Amino acid sequence: MLAEIITIGDEILIGQIVDTNSAFIGKLLNTIGVSVYQITSIQDERKHILKAFAEAESNADIIIVTGGLGPTKDDITKHTICDYFNDHLVRNEAVTNNIKSLWRDYVKQPLQQVNLDQALMPSQSKELMNTVGSAPGIWIEKNNKVFISLPGVPYEMKLLMENEVIPKLKVKYKRPYILHKTLITYGIGESMLAEKIEDWETHLPVHIKLAYLPNFGKVRLRLSAIGADSEEVIRDVDAEIQKVLPLIKEEYIGIEEEDGDLEIVISKQLTKLGKTLALAESCTGGKIAELFTSHAGASAYFKGGLVTYATQSKIDILGVPETLIATHSVVSAEVAEAMAEKARLLYKSDYAISTTGNAGPLKGDSDAEVGTVFIALATKNKIFSQKFELGKNRERVVNKAVNSALEILKKEIFKN
Amino acid sequence: MLAEIITIGDEILIGQIVDTNSAFIGKLLNTIGVSVYQITSIQDERKHILKAFAEAESNADIIIVTGGLGPTKDDITKHTICDYFNDHLVRNEAVTNNIKSLWRDYVKQPLQQVNLDQALMPSQSKELMNTVGSAPGIWIEKNNKVFISLPGVPYEMKLLMENEVIPKLKVKYKRPYILHKTLITYGIGESMLAEKIEDWETHLPVHIKLAYLPNFGKVRLRLSAIGADSEEVIRDVDAEIQKVLPLIKEEYIGIEEEDGDLEIVISKQLTKLGKTLALAESCTGGKIAELFTSHAGASAYFKGGLVTYATQSKIDILGVPETLIATHSVVSAEVAEAMAEKARLLYKSDYAISTTGNAGPLKGDSDAEVGTVFIALATKNKIFSQKFELGKNRERVVNKAVNSALEILKKEIFKN
Repeated sequence: MLAEIITIGDEILIGQIVDTNSAFIGKLLNTIGVSVYQITSIQDERKHILKAFAEAESNADIIIVTGGLGPTKDDITKHTICDYFNDHLVRNEAVTNNIKSLWRDYVKQPLQQVNLDQALMPSQSKELMNTVGSAPGIWIEKNNKVFISLPGVPYEMKLLMENEVIPKLKVKYKRPYILHKTLITYGIGESMLAEKIEDWETHLPVHIKLAYLPNFGKVRLRLSAIGADSEEVIRDVDAEIQKVLPLIKEEYIGIEEEDGDLEIVISKQLTKLGKTLALAESCTGGKIAELFTSHAGASAYFKGGLVTYATQSKIDILGVPETLIATHSVVSAEVAEAMAEKARLLYKSDYAISTTGNAGPLKGDSDAEVGTVFIALATKNKIFSQKFELGKNRERVVNKAVNSALEILKKEIFKN
Repeated sequence: MLAEIITIGDEILIGQIVDTNSAFIGKLLNTIGVSVYQITSIQDERKHILKAFAEAESNADIIIVTGGLGPTKDDITKHTICDYFNDHLVRNEAVTNNIKSLWRDYVKQPLQQVNLDQALMPSQSKELMNTVGSAPGIWIEKNNKVFISLPGVPYEMKLLMENEVIPKLKVKYKRPYILHKTLITYGIGESMLAEKIEDWETHLPVHIKLAYLPNFGKVRLRLSAIGADSEEVIRDVDAEIQKVLPLIKEEYIGIEEEDGDLEIVISKQLTKLGKTLALAESCTGGKIAELFTSHAGASAYFKGGLVTYATQSKIDILGVPETLIATHSVVSAEVAEAMAEKARLLYKSDYAISTTGNAGPLKGDSDAEVGTVFIALATKNKIFSQKFELGKNRERVVNKAVNSALEILKKEIFKN
């Protein structure tokens, strides 16, 4: 079962926005056994859209289009769909009522004709009701293929995918089972890793595909498998994981979670334990706090964090002794540990993490080399820190530091 | 002059990563007058890659491919390029030397044959020297078209684009001038805005294209123009902007900067003024701090910030009086203002911004409705706050709050 995703919008092609919709859709489709064959981003231009539709129809069973459904003149997706299917627009009463109630309850501005006209839909289509916006999703079936057109605004698209598209696809198609499992390794290059597991890789069954994903000091190994029988797929992949783990004992740091991100694993565990967290961030500049609070439910465990970027703020706000900084420099194990401990006491949390380092490009308030970062963890019983050399690239240094901090915390809270 | 971007990698199609490379490349190409016709993300699969190459060649003059250049078995781009051009691999001495010196100076692990073999390149190609990684960029010319293959790791791709690809394209092609100018409006819906400027839009010259980009309470209006003569393009676009501005006087809040983001405009102005900034974030959870510190040079103006997520931390760390919270609730103008002032005093900064609100999905430590956010700004002479109702969607509430905070600050620092 193959899908193609078409995202329409010049803003993607000129780099004004990053297309995050496709990744969301691809991930969600995979969970129900639909593989994405291709993602195509195209211009708001009639001929180009028609060409992409035709190519997608020849490639895939399910075509999901986002963008171009707004009320303004540059929104041409709906008309182009009519051209493609030799169809015309008719007014949909349920959508009309939805728009009226949205305007009455939320928008509270005059309802215009162009808004009401968003209820005009291709006559061959079924509506996918958009409860948070005026553009309905459009569902058209033709020769056992499905064309789905969704608004490009991410939260509208997400709700429609989850509440309308996925349930309908599940009913319409018998789908195989797709499994991705990703092992995370740290501290070894891609080619060295490949050498270590060469023999295992060579003997992988044909229905299991291996990918190497290097990023910020980690190499992730993704095993992907597809099959009719979910139990069989799971069993086969797990068997291969059991074979490879002894080969990468030193480098293996964990399996990537289904929901992807380390901070989610940590937040679940902290919530489960009823423990709380605080942060004192210097070189990571609030990025760790932002990661945790980007997910709902953070208030259950996250007490807060301080971004003490300037050296003076570490003294004034955290209360790190000035002499400690003078003696050891601001980028040091001692200062990192003091920061973590002070943050823990200030926020009265069970755990506190701190980062201090030099992300570059220039040396800051210390003589530490660019890329040197200290990360400390304070708990009720102990404080410890670790030194990292994270390279010369600012972006990488910060990202690696964030990852390393999360890993240190994860290790600690999963200990018992 | 048209380009097509092809990103290769199953990780994009299964939604394991978001493709940020394409936006970077698209934006950079636009600056030298190259338009991106299409972005195509495809599987690590030989047939699919060959098909995409052929289609791209028929669509565009410049084909830029990223991904699949690593040293492991799943990296097949280079071999597939050979298939496509009926070519074979030959060892490139300059690249070999580069790899050797990278391993000696940075990697400091044993140099393996697979690493050395990254210096094998299609015989018809020229190398684009990758000074930070072992995979060289590949440049192949054929019938006045260019195929460029780059590694998928973002920072390697970025350096190669900036230092190798762009300069070479500038020499090879005579290019037109592309201009995008984006006006930002706030507090009015897309359709209302369209109605206000309908007459102006209808009379736009054919070589100027208008796009509406609604997002988080703002609607951005992008004017795009292309032409042989840069002065003429600039003059025409500016003339249209002068015509439309009086029509959107109330809603217009500024022109989107070339570098895009509001925090860059603010950071430049603060650095210029020699003024400093501190933050006290509650519902924005560190996102504002992260925005500022994601750019180099933040230490010139950014003192730091506190994430006081839990109510108790606002009392314990910021020193907001408990009685103030009891009287007005934690989500109130009074508490926001106290937070900003306390942060400014703690960090000894010229400006401090605070946010307190309820991002949802549930009500927190206050009775405030989901979506209610107070933002305060403290300066040496005054403290003031503003109340916002930002809707029910957590992600939007946080993003709108971040935007609003930046806008309040921007207005203040550009006053004089």
